[in-house]
Amino acid sequence: MRDFPLAKVFHLIEPGPVVLLTTAGKSGANVMTMSWHTMMEFVPPLIGCVISPANLSHSTLLKTRECVIAIPTVDLVSKMVDIGNCSGEDVNKFEAFGLTPVRAKKVAAPLIAECLANLECKVADTRMVNRYALFVLEVVKGWTDLKRRERRTLHANGDGTFAVDGRTIDLKKKMVKWEQFL
Amino acid sequence: MRDFPLAKVFHLIEPGPVVLLTTAGKSGANVMTMSWHTMMEFVPPLIGCVISPANLSHSTLLKTRECVIAIPTVDLVSKMVDIGNCSGEDVNKFEAFGLTPVRAKKVAAPLIAECLANLECKVADTRMVNRYALFVLEVVKGWTDLKRRERRTLHANGDGTFAVDGRTIDLKKKMVKWEQFL
Repeated sequence: MRDFPLAKVFHLIEPGPVVLLTTAGKSGANVMTMSWHTMMEFVPPLIGCVISPANLSHSTLLKTRECVIAIPTVDLVSKMVDIGNCSGEDVNKFEAFGLTPVRAKKVAAPLIAECLANLECKVADTRMVNRYALFVLEVVKGWTDLKRRERRTLHANGDGTFAVDGRTIDLKKKMVKWEQFL
Repeated sequence: MRDFPLAKVFHLIEPGPVVLLTTAGKSGANVMTMSWHTMMEFVPPLIGCVISPANLSHSTLLKTRECVIAIPTVDLVSKMVDIGNCSGEDVNKFEAFGLTPVRAKKVAAPLIAECLANLECKVADTRMVNRYALFVLEVVKGWTDLKRRERRTLHANGDGTFAVDGRTIDLKKKMVKWEQFL
């Protein structure tokens, strides 16, 4: 995996892909599936994530204040759904689903080798956690796998179906107001 | 357009489509393009949206506390990009882009006839606006166009390119933890 520039993190998150979120708690590494997230700032990149207290990751995140957001592609869809349908309290998910943890640089939570990109994050704001389970994360380091051919991400329709990225439409020429971000 | 149940609003927003947001200010209706949003609660449906103070819609939303989130499909991609590259301070966007405003039921902001779905929203929480430009919206009424054949939404890659929904993968059988939401 190669460095991915922080200023381009929004290119990964703004499209709204389903992501995996890893944490490192007392009992080891854990991972959850997440679809309720949004970019909140370009640089430093902030990501808002809704993580229910029903998820083990919620309490681990409050304790450790660190995580990794990993972006899977369509080849991982089946594992990604299974990860979202069991709990780290019952299962060692990295083992059960054959994910390869890779040591991160700035956080204790592991990267996932099988993913297209990995974003090391620190919790930047917990003031909306009690009311909305909303964590504000700051991305402190980005990684991407340049060799990966499969780059199509997934979008959760919320009903157990997932939309795979189809064709790409290039309208860069029309982005007159946003040139500096392209 | 027909009623769309509030309990299923997350089926529209969770996939992360680019949306249009309409407001009704002193100088009439306005519309912006938006990609920084996330579901925050199932029922009543809450949506978190980051809307920069640089957008006219920011101040209108603070004043009127009402808006509509409209979901365009791939046939509207060109208009959708143009809407995001000019300001309601300079242009009457509904006129300029040939959008048909339709009277909403519970808010003054208009629905957009050309869109797949429309969600009438009231501002539920402005406490994160100063720091993050994050508005929490409560969806109070949903509409969808059942007759519409084109249902493929768009995902902003942040670089002036847009991913169109491709094929759908059905993994409902694996969603053992989430059956009540399907």
